[in-house]
Amino acid sequence: MSLTHFDAAGQAHMVDVSEKPVTAREAVAEGRVIMTAETLALAIGGAKKGDVMGVARLAGIMGAKRTSDLIPLCHPLPITKVALELTPDAELPGVQVTATVRTTGQTGVEMEALTAVSVACLTIYDMLKAAEKGMRIEGIRLVTKTGGKSGNYEAD
Amino acid sequence: MSLTHFDAAGQAHMVDVSEKPVTAREAVAEGRVIMTAETLALAIGGAKKGDVMGVARLAGIMGAKRTSDLIPLCHPLPITKVALELTPDAELPGVQVTATVRTTGQTGVEMEALTAVSVACLTIYDMLKAAEKGMRIEGIRLVTKTGGKSGNYEAD
Amino acid sequence: MSLTHFDAAGQAHMVDVSEKPVTAREAVAEGRVIMTAETLALAIGGAKKGDVMGVARLAGIMGAKRTSDLIPLCHPLPITKVALELTPDAELPGVQVTATVRTTGQTGVEMEALTAVSVACLTIYDMLKAAEKGMRIEGIRLVTKTGGKSGNYEAD
Amino acid sequence: MSLTHFDAAGQAHMVDVSEKPVTAREAVAEGRVIMTAETLALAIGGAKKGDVMGVARLAGIMGAKRTSDLIPLCHPLPITKVALELTPDAELPGVQVTATVRTTGQTGVEMEALTAVSVACLTIYDMLKAAEKGMRIEGIRLVTKTGGKSGNYEAD
Amino acid sequence: MSLTHFDAAGQAHMVDVSEKPVTAREAVAEGRVIMTAETLALAIGGAKKGDVMGVARLAGIMGAKRTSDLIPLCHPLPITKVALELTPDAELPGVQVTATVRTTGQTGVEMEALTAVSVACLTIYDMLKAAEKGMRIEGIRLVTKTGGKSGNYEAD
Amino acid sequence: MSLTHFDAAGQAHMVDVSEKPVTAREAVAEGRVIMTAETLALAIGGAKKGDVMGVARLAGIMGAKRTSDLIPLCHPLPITKVALELTPDAELPGVQVTATVRTTGQTGVEMEALTAVSVACLTIYDMLKAAEKGMRIEGIRLVTKTGGKSGNYEAD
Repeated sequence: MSLTHFDAAGQAHMVDVSEKPVTAREAVAEGRVIMTAETLALAIGGAKKGDVMGVARLAGIMGAKRTSDLIPLCHPLPITKVALELTPDAELPGVQVTATVRTTGQTGVEMEALTAVSVACLTIYDMLKAAEKGMRIEGIRLVTKTGGKSGNYEAD
Repeated sequence: MSLTHFDAAGQAHMVDVSEKPVTAREAVAEGRVIMTAETLALAIGGAKKGDVMGVARLAGIMGAKRTSDLIPLCHPLPITKVALELTPDAELPGVQVTATVRTTGQTGVEMEALTAVSVACLTIYDMLKAAEKGMRIEGIRLVTKTGGKSGNYEAD
Repeated sequence: MSLTHFDAAGQAHMVDVSEKPVTAREAVAEGRVIMTAETLALAIGGAKKGDVMGVARLAGIMGAKRTSDLIPLCHPLPITKVALELTPDAELPGVQVTATVRTTGQTGVEMEALTAVSVACLTIYDMLKAAEKGMRIEGIRLVTKTGGKSGNYEAD
Repeated sequence: MSLTHFDAAGQAHMVDVSEKPVTAREAVAEGRVIMTAETLALAIGGAKKGDVMGVARLAGIMGAKRTSDLIPLCHPLPITKVALELTPDAELPGVQVTATVRTTGQTGVEMEALTAVSVACLTIYDMLKAAEKGMRIEGIRLVTKTGGKSGNYEAD
Repeated sequence: MSLTHFDAAGQAHMVDVSEKPVTAREAVAEGRVIMTAETLALAIGGAKKGDVMGVARLAGIMGAKRTSDLIPLCHPLPITKVALELTPDAELPGVQVTATVRTTGQTGVEMEALTAVSVACLTIYDMLKAAEKGMRIEGIRLVTKTGGKSGNYEAD
Repeated sequence: MSLTHFDAAGQAHMVDVSEKPVTAREAVAEGRVIMTAETLALAIGGAKKGDVMGVARLAGIMGAKRTSDLIPLCHPLPITKVALELTPDAELPGVQVTATVRTTGQTGVEMEALTAVSVACLTIYDMLKAAEKGMRIEGIRLVTKTGGKSGNYEAD
């Protein structure tokens, strides 16, 4: 097998998608930030304490729009939807992040969804790092992908 | 405890660092991309197959420079060094990513190091996703931090 | 009435426009910078003194292209036209700014036109602030909007 | 009087500040979005309805960091603080926006404060435009400026 | 003849392409960096010495995506392919750079191809400037252009 | 000799300048766009025809501010001055472009000056390409460099 991001000589290029049909595409990605129960309590402290989730959600949405600036071989895409769910989870303890991105275009939006999750997780870390530097970002992965020639994908 | 990124009324702001001294600061962060042994073999396929590590390293360096664009309350900083190590690891199997960032400034570079790692991991995913969509980004965390009033930090 | 930029739970998201038809859309916005007659004379000083209007016009055009970077929930759009009129007005005294933006897309370009006006006005302020810090930016508003499901709009 | 942003031949340039001392500087700017009482009620609808003020505040902070990208002759500056106050005002009716920006640098941060206000006002417009297209952005101006050779400034 | 980037009054604008058909378009541009034979030997030193060509190729690809940010009156375009060839040439001595860009859109991608070449050449200069400051970038030009109403173009 | 942009293992990194002193630095770069006499006549057509030189000058200034975004291993720098001279030259025929950039920092501004020249030349091409696609950008090089440990440089 060869990698599509490289040509026959092994040189990186932005793959030609000119001939691919314009279709509706969606990708869902997820990840989580692991922290202590004390830090999680701060994170969900409410409007009086500061809206950590709201800031991280917005950062994730804006991050999705910067994907092709950040990922070298990623095509620029007219994103038609970005939504993030941030759910405090006492079991972890930590915050679960899920991003859904849609486009009508010639390539998929997996990278946009994964970038949205990553930027939201980094922002959670930034907002809470004064309380706990040992937080970890874990389990960033693609959950589902629909549309496009390569078919649908659903994580186990 | 209250969060520094919010004021007394719980409103997000970019914290005032005007009075903080300009000191030498360094942060090291790490993370990894988990994949199958087959995908890892593709990732280290050599120059003829395409330099996955080289592309991801460069993306991480450039990502570090975009940190304050991506993280809403992050101060812009004159970065003086960014270096990334990407190490294939057959045990995982996957790729270990470590980023070291330095500045001479009024705030630390933890977020720059974590962003460099995140963007490098996302780029590895992008380059290899045609082979395996089930890859996961795991264990993104701060390893060490030196310089600044809050003192040094070293992960367990 | 509920706001489209928030979901049922009140969380911000970039609204799904996947199902909206691709149609021709246009928006016209306006605003003005109010200054003293002396400052206005400097602003229209001619090529020998410096082309304040030309610099501001260009800044407005480039600003329109950055709209989705600046406005968190704004969709990225393939702009097909941007034009700005900057008219010195001795009555104000000051400069009238009008921007016209077009696209063929799934959402309107009101924000692009308003952003173009805002950036042009800010640039006028920047170029003339050595002469007068008391200038004011006033009356930024949407003038007309055509195309799209929500119908045409014309300001009173 | 001649304009500092142009040279003797009237050509735009980014003024040489190499010889200016590095000093603490602050600027405060303000503006407001005028709307109907009904729209204002939506804007302050609370967390269940969506946090219009929180989104606009964050957009203003991030906008301040983009100032030198937007305003052609503006120097890039290491901002050390950005804070925005957004206050619903039933008298207008509308929302008052005030931004405070600080730096330790060779030029002032008037444009950063004015840009923060402008982007916050544009974002308020964006979030509420489905309810009322006739909103107006008014009264964007510099309130105070301290630090730097040209002395302090206070609006009437 | 008049210039399309200016209106009848000589004012710069982003030309209206709303009515132009969406067609497949391609542009190829080239340029070269001239250096001494000793510097060229460093440039092609191999993976152990550092992959100058690989870094420059990636910079060119990413530069193509920034074209409408850099060139004031350039339309934003959904690029569907970017590829660069960097060929060491002992005859010059130096490096030949060729970029191919494709889109399916309403305007051509000549500027994207020329920008990709320029950024790749600048990056080569940056990587080698410690060895030779006297390098020159020469012969940046459009080689071919296909698609669009103005017809095909082929350089002599 | 080894290249500073690569470490001992040949891996690209952003070189550590933490220990370098903060000094005043200046770089001057030049280049030219070669065109027919007819195209040059259009370029200098005057305000009624459109200010090609003014647009290109502004694009060069703004381009200098984007240098560290474009050139992967370039350090972000607080530029303190950017000025461009654009001189029509009937001998070429064409336009001569010279850029002067200053900073007070830890690394030089050669890349900023070369980027300013490149973006100005690309913009000239863009504005005039409807008249002549065969224009060429030639002779982009560093003219002088002062400040910094590596000493001054003056082209032959």
